[in-house]
Amino acid sequence: MIMDVTFLGTGSAYPSPHRGASALVLRTEGDCWLFDCGEGTQTQLMRSPLRAGRISKVFISHLHGDHLFGLPGLLCTISLNTNPDPQQNLNCVDIYGPRGLRHFLRVTLGLTGSQLLFPYAVHELEPTADQSPEEGQLSLEMTAERGPLHPQERPGRTIPLDDSSDSYLLFEDKKFVVKAFRLFHRVPSFGFCIKEHDHPGRLKTEVLKELGLKPGPLYGRLKAGESVTLESGRVVLPTDVQEESIPGRKVCIFGDCSSVLGEGALSLCKGADVLVHEATLGNEYREKAVDHGHSTPEMAAAVASACCARKLVLYHFSQRYKPSSLQKEGDEEDVSELKRQAEEALQGSGVEVALAEDLLTLPIPLRRPR
Amino acid sequence: MIMDVTFLGTGSAYPSPHRGASALVLRTEGDCWLFDCGEGTQTQLMRSPLRAGRISKVFISHLHGDHLFGLPGLLCTISLNTNPDPQQNLNCVDIYGPRGLRHFLRVTLGLTGSQLLFPYAVHELEPTADQSPEEGQLSLEMTAERGPLHPQERPGRTIPLDDSSDSYLLFEDKKFVVKAFRLFHRVPSFGFCIKEHDHPGRLKTEVLKELGLKPGPLYGRLKAGESVTLESGRVVLPTDVQEESIPGRKVCIFGDCSSVLGEGALSLCKGADVLVHEATLGNEYREKAVDHGHSTPEMAAAVASACCARKLVLYHFSQRYKPSSLQKEGDEEDVSELKRQAEEALQGSGVEVALAEDLLTLPIPLRRPR
Repeated sequence: MIMDVTFLGTGSAYPSPHRGASALVLRTEGDCWLFDCGEGTQTQLMRSPLRAGRISKVFISHLHGDHLFGLPGLLCTISLNTNPDPQQNLNCVDIYGPRGLRHFLRVTLGLTGSQLLFPYAVHELEPTADQSPEEGQLSLEMTAERGPLHPQERPGRTIPLDDSSDSYLLFEDKKFVVKAFRLFHRVPSFGFCIKEHDHPGRLKTEVLKELGLKPGPLYGRLKAGESVTLESGRVVLPTDVQEESIPGRKVCIFGDCSSVLGEGALSLCKGADVLVHEATLGNEYREKAVDHGHSTPEMAAAVASACCARKLVLYHFSQRYKPSSLQKEGDEEDVSELKRQAEEALQGSGVEVALAEDLLTLPIPLRRPR
Repeated sequence: MIMDVTFLGTGSAYPSPHRGASALVLRTEGDCWLFDCGEGTQTQLMRSPLRAGRISKVFISHLHGDHLFGLPGLLCTISLNTNPDPQQNLNCVDIYGPRGLRHFLRVTLGLTGSQLLFPYAVHELEPTADQSPEEGQLSLEMTAERGPLHPQERPGRTIPLDDSSDSYLLFEDKKFVVKAFRLFHRVPSFGFCIKEHDHPGRLKTEVLKELGLKPGPLYGRLKAGESVTLESGRVVLPTDVQEESIPGRKVCIFGDCSSVLGEGALSLCKGADVLVHEATLGNEYREKAVDHGHSTPEMAAAVASACCARKLVLYHFSQRYKPSSLQKEGDEEDVSELKRQAEEALQGSGVEVALAEDLLTLPIPLRRPR
């Protein structure tokens, strides 16, 4: 199954003509999941090979405008490109994010008379008080939902922290389990861990032949993990005739943060194939970065190293860093220096480092069976 | 005094890579006034020669997202580029728009923890029930402001319709009087009339010399419209020594509409130097345009003609019309056809027609004295 991630916006604070505001899409067969939706995300989508109408789930890491202001407009534009037959639009767009997101969407869509052609539901994560300094905490009054639901709004879940795992279970389906974890930032921020289920190993057809088994329903039962009893009375276990299972991929996408919070992040992200982490400013600006709730390449590298991630992708760069393609000799700041700083911190760890750029697509291949 | 208008976004419904969502800036010496603020306006501003920090007033014609979704982000970005010394930021950004705008900004800025460095005030226009079909009307409950003001929000005015003139007086200062008028659209929509005060005519220096008057305080009094008594006892009237006054310019900017409402629009816009009117779809789509509350070039031309405007500028084009610079042979739709349709309708009227394009700046020169 194909899986890749496309960065739509890699700039922090605001969108600029050379770096969009935060947004990336994780694509698996047929499905697009959007992570954060800064202003201009819909225009970046139009510039990419992706189709907005394919977005079935949206994840908002935190409520800062540069991660959120594009969402009402994106939903409206998806709707404009939707088949007007209501029987064709029964699939609900699920939106996950911090408490307050439901109210935000209800007010912005409501006051602008935005009548969507598809249903949506907002599933809110309950932040804990230690996720931000006191001044970054919004009152319960402010974040409470009010008034009637938007005509297309379906009731969403309220997801509390699961104390035992220090994480939030967003959902599990046939292919994936998706959880969130807590981060520390100026306002409550979350990261997301998308874990693909392991793929069953291939059947060893030679062994099956030797056993006298022919392709048919018994193959299917073995593949599904069931034992099969032959006419001879011999019991064939799936492990006898199946290669080792192929581990599902794990993609971890961090929201803005100056650190993780609790045990959730590191335990969920252990062994991530791809770990996307912000690196707003270079190591030399560490104090400023932390002051603003952000990370440097060195800090991102420390997280990736603690998780034994395979690949660390840096993104969410201060707009002072131009994309490599626009870099000119003599420019004061150079985004490739951020990569160098992370690589230096990860020397010998085996963690690969990549820089996100607007419209860059990174494939996430399946690991070979061990 | 220099005066010009720069179109930042000329597309309808949503922003695309080749046409931004609705926004234009009227620039007079030192001051920038923004009319509508679709998503991506701040990025378009960065592409233009204008500076976001110069925006002192914002006018929102109606609450549809393609005219509004860029406003919270724009305010945040202006703030990021603002001097952090509070003593430097005493000037309030005045924002004018339909009832509901105050609540929209308070919720979007509040939930995203957007702490602006400058004060702002929202002055709300009270729509009348006949400005939109019933389904486009928002309940008083929905548009009411709630909760505490944003820390930087100053109380704004609520501006009712002045029945006698069928218009809304937004403000008058030393240079301008700005009024709004009612339009008919799917949701209540307004147009804005910016009228510059007349400039006093030049003093006829030869006549003054003959009278024995030398440059000095008496010149100033005559220029200010006062009479002056000479030593001889002769009274000199300003009209004796002053050329005819130079008429102030009038710029009229229409929000989305399928028609004007009442007498306000035509009476305010009479003799406009520049009349900016939407033309979402070509004449051949008139029924569809009107159905969606929009206009065709012919409809825009009829308004410009009724107002005896000097120049009609068409904007707010369906995204099906590419900008002329991207037009290719064989393209189904051609934006220059919209211009042709308006010109045809205005044949012989003396009204000039122009097409708005993203980042186009149109100078608005002073008229020569008659």
